[in-house]
Amino acid sequence: MQTDSATGPADGLADGPVEGLVVALDIGGTKIAGALVDGEGGIRVRAQRPTPAREDDDTVMRAVEDVLAELAASPLWEDAGAVGIGSAGPVDAHRGTVSPVNIPGWRDYPLVERVQKAAGGRPVTLVGDGVAMTAAEHWLGAARGHDNALCLVVSTGVGGGLVLDGRLHPGPTGNAGHIGHMVVDLDGEPCACGGRGCVERLASGPNLTRRALENGWRPGPDGDVSAAAVAAAARAGDPIARASFERAAQALAAGIAATAALVEIDIAVVGGGVAGAGEILFAPLRRGLASYATLSFVRNLTVVPALTGTDAGLLGAAAAAAATTAR
Amino acid sequence: MQTDSATGPADGLADGPVEGLVVALDIGGTKIAGALVDGEGGIRVRAQRPTPAREDDDTVMRAVEDVLAELAASPLWEDAGAVGIGSAGPVDAHRGTVSPVNIPGWRDYPLVERVQKAAGGRPVTLVGDGVAMTAAEHWLGAARGHDNALCLVVSTGVGGGLVLDGRLHPGPTGNAGHIGHMVVDLDGEPCACGGRGCVERLASGPNLTRRALENGWRPGPDGDVSAAAVAAAARAGDPIARASFERAAQALAAGIAATAALVEIDIAVVGGGVAGAGEILFAPLRRGLASYATLSFVRNLTVVPALTGTDAGLLGAAAAAAATTAR
Repeated sequence: MQTDSATGPADGLADGPVEGLVVALDIGGTKIAGALVDGEGGIRVRAQRPTPAREDDDTVMRAVEDVLAELAASPLWEDAGAVGIGSAGPVDAHRGTVSPVNIPGWRDYPLVERVQKAAGGRPVTLVGDGVAMTAAEHWLGAARGHDNALCLVVSTGVGGGLVLDGRLHPGPTGNAGHIGHMVVDLDGEPCACGGRGCVERLASGPNLTRRALENGWRPGPDGDVSAAAVAAAARAGDPIARASFERAAQALAAGIAATAALVEIDIAVVGGGVAGAGEILFAPLRRGLASYATLSFVRNLTVVPALTGTDAGLLGAAAAAAATTAR
Repeated sequence: MQTDSATGPADGLADGPVEGLVVALDIGGTKIAGALVDGEGGIRVRAQRPTPAREDDDTVMRAVEDVLAELAASPLWEDAGAVGIGSAGPVDAHRGTVSPVNIPGWRDYPLVERVQKAAGGRPVTLVGDGVAMTAAEHWLGAARGHDNALCLVVSTGVGGGLVLDGRLHPGPTGNAGHIGHMVVDLDGEPCACGGRGCVERLASGPNLTRRALENGWRPGPDGDVSAAAVAAAARAGDPIARASFERAAQALAAGIAATAALVEIDIAVVGGGVAGAGEILFAPLRRGLASYATLSFVRNLTVVPALTGTDAGLLGAAAAAAATTAR
């Protein structure tokens, strides 16, 4: 068991049960992270395993069980009332199954049932990772206090989630807020999802790099072709790198404006690796919004960077669990 | 006072108060319609005036007051518990004001306050006309029994509304569901709203006709250039007319698919004059959805014609009023 020294030792027992403690799981294609999170958003205990993403279903599940066992070794475990899972999608919260694109061994995998068994029968809430990040930003981040918000993760893919009327809106299967697969270019290029002209096809990190390379941008001597490398080139004045970010920002702006027209949001919170480019992304994003979001009820929409960082998945899973149980 | 013989004489008093009776107002650029609507969706009393759309604010309001006075002359008036208004937009339900594009004399006009005064202090609920049509379809039409639905009106403009988690989702200002101004063509032509590439710019009746004319379609000897005339030509095999409907359907499909990705709907209900084209519109619309709506959680989306017809505005206004008061 590892305690998180940044948030204090796991000595809650001495002061009685920890208020609103829940078990949080953040399941992605690279790592499986777990934590015990208190009612204030403090991470009391952490555990983590690499995701054996190319292995069979039982092997992946064993990594989840190892994370849970490590958390269960904490004296705080007994205080935890519920389990929240934020998982790479697609998920099916209605059936309790997941089919993460990056974990091919899990297809319609009954994750909720298995986690419930491994967690001593506690109630389990499952949401997609975009919804989890949104729950975190609404609880503790840039969307705090906003009753109608869209949160986006712009990274290898483009995900997101919605807060409507002051509450998380995961949708019936836990996938709502999928801004990455909104169509913003109806005659556009085919997207990996099977559609075409999706936001993700224009704005994700790999697509941003691909477009820069196709238009003649070349990486430096280290060969780094990440979106961060394209951002560094843009910051240094490279016009092709800059144009690729502008096109990504335009697609994000169209998707955010379409979201605002459809469900009336007043803030869009953008996180993920590509958002790390800062003003290289946010400046053209604000210009794009000014040109697309023109109706009276969407005109005051603001766009800001996310605040919850790398713990967004864990905090969001905790928030989703807390939302469906008494704190 | 006119009674509606199709739904029986206004003799409710003889049987005691009419269950769930509300006052409904449907305010558009052409006419102002009013009704007393019972809890089953029966229209007991009707009144109507042409909209003096080019006159000043007080003159337009007088037409509304005349409609209300005619309804108030009915012996059923005293049974009506609340007032619902569906108005041409934009509306601001939060502030109780309307600024209908087609009624220039009303800008930030305090319609809720004025109607409340004219209706003896009854509580007043205001929604946009797309939201009203959605409330009607959810209550009595094709969206009945669906917990997550998008309803569209494809006519001179393209409007719409949302049902989420089993309830009407008007949004904080009553404008949610504005699918007509979702961006589906991020490099597309400027739209009247100030944006570009909106669904309405590609799919509304006037834009459908304009595109057919630009591509060489010519109306018959009667000079009819309505969307219905283009539909008739398409039905007779005219390839240009057919292509214009296919393009409109493609834009609607992109908007509906984007909506499904964002909020998880399982049905889209399409009404309005352009939907009167039937399979000329619906066949390419279904093809378009099959190509854009490919994610697991949106793949089973169906698209069907609206059922509530010309009374959708009144029935929807009644439903919106009923939703915010005890029936």
